[in-house]
Amino acid sequence: MKKANKKMSAAIIIIGNEILSGRTQDTNVVLITKWLNRLGVKLKEVRIIPDIEKSIVRTVNRLRKKFNYVFTTGGIGPTHDDITSRSIAKAFRQSYGYHKEAYKILENYYGKDNFNQGRKKMAKIPKKAKLIFNPSSAAPGFIVNNVFCLPGVPSILESMLIGLEGKIVKGKKIISKSINIRTVESEIARELELVQNNYKKDVEIGSYPFFKQGKIGVSIVIRSIKKNKIDDCFKKIVSFLKKKKIKIIYKKE
Amino acid sequence: MKKANKKMSAAIIIIGNEILSGRTQDTNVVLITKWLNRLGVKLKEVRIIPDIEKSIVRTVNRLRKKFNYVFTTGGIGPTHDDITSRSIAKAFRQSYGYHKEAYKILENYYGKDNFNQGRKKMAKIPKKAKLIFNPSSAAPGFIVNNVFCLPGVPSILESMLIGLEGKIVKGKKIISKSINIRTVESEIARELELVQNNYKKDVEIGSYPFFKQGKIGVSIVIRSIKKNKIDDCFKKIVSFLKKKKIKIIYKKE
Repeated sequence: MKKANKKMSAAIIIIGNEILSGRTQDTNVVLITKWLNRLGVKLKEVRIIPDIEKSIVRTVNRLRKKFNYVFTTGGIGPTHDDITSRSIAKAFRQSYGYHKEAYKILENYYGKDNFNQGRKKMAKIPKKAKLIFNPSSAAPGFIVNNVFCLPGVPSILESMLIGLEGKIVKGKKIISKSINIRTVESEIARELELVQNNYKKDVEIGSYPFFKQGKIGVSIVIRSIKKNKIDDCFKKIVSFLKKKKIKIIYKKE
Repeated sequence: MKKANKKMSAAIIIIGNEILSGRTQDTNVVLITKWLNRLGVKLKEVRIIPDIEKSIVRTVNRLRKKFNYVFTTGGIGPTHDDITSRSIAKAFRQSYGYHKEAYKILENYYGKDNFNQGRKKMAKIPKKAKLIFNPSSAAPGFIVNNVFCLPGVPSILESMLIGLEGKIVKGKKIISKSINIRTVESEIARELELVQNNYKKDVEIGSYPFFKQGKIGVSIVIRSIKKNKIDDCFKKIVSFLKKKKIKIIYKKE
């Protein structure tokens, strides 16, 4: 595993008309983000874009310069609408064609007689890319510099993330604590803001109303890479909640 | 209802650290998109960004010039992390403060005695904004030019969309047909590409593998604003599927 760095950032690019048409509910963002959290890499932005080469090239080139890592999902399959590999090659001005290692993996998986044109297409990627192993369905993902290209099918994507961990420089882990309370946001807004102002630099406090089984409540979430700051902050919030006699449903420390 | 236009486009900006942290699964994109589909407005891009003023201002200013409509979700509540209203005012260089009409609605809803600072904050929006009626919880959304600001809680957002329909110029409705088949993508890739190439300009054909109850299959989705083109395209696909003896599980015409 590579050395832990202080702040590591990432962006996700979801490529696919099926998401933009409302046909498919994306679940890959949550999947990748939970995995990134474990590695201490902070997700800073997500873009969902169509299967259009110009959009992919432009978005990849913009985000790869802004963040430590970029993850793309979708568009590396065998059909005409799978244009991610070709677009990534274009973004990096690398040649696009059969990748020897990918070709071998796929030929071996399908057998020579069943290795048809569609399947061969999945071996066409930027020629100098490093492969991402796919334990579910053979067709590999790939890495060019800091851009990691993954498939769109969540179960396959998930199976490929584990093998990727050694290729990511870890950041300092983001710690998260939360307190669920029985009140409405406006009752705690002022006090919560005061606490946030005292920890502006180090701690991120979020407040999220919820409605569960006919009851309303608020979930306060505190996130930081500094354990002592998050502990202080947590205590201060619990203290003002007690003073205001607001019922704490549960705390996750 | 305003006059139907040929091509209307939209972008969605999801504002919220809770989505980027993986804590919350976004469902607002699908909600808004299905509603836009009914209005004939095509969603072209989605961005998920953090609760950071600079990011909001920059993203809003970029996308509102690129698309007919921009919808933001999240960040219009009573707490310190709700900074969308202030950021939108900044993006448009409009003054930000108590909006008379919004103030009245909220004061009336909560009653003078319970209209505390947090609740008052929800009346602070760009002063010249038009309000979006909120039948669930009073606090209104708002419109500045082509930017529509909605809350993050899906049930509240959904209740507000209906009242918005009269404010959107409708586009020509996108028709969608689909065919689910029992095969793998690589078996139909070549034929499907030939059909797509014949209808490059007018029809968008997508191919999506699925795994359901242990069985694999492919869903072919055809989208267009032109009924005759989509019908032709559909027939050609069904015809090559029959020739190849691929089992059609069901057709949605």
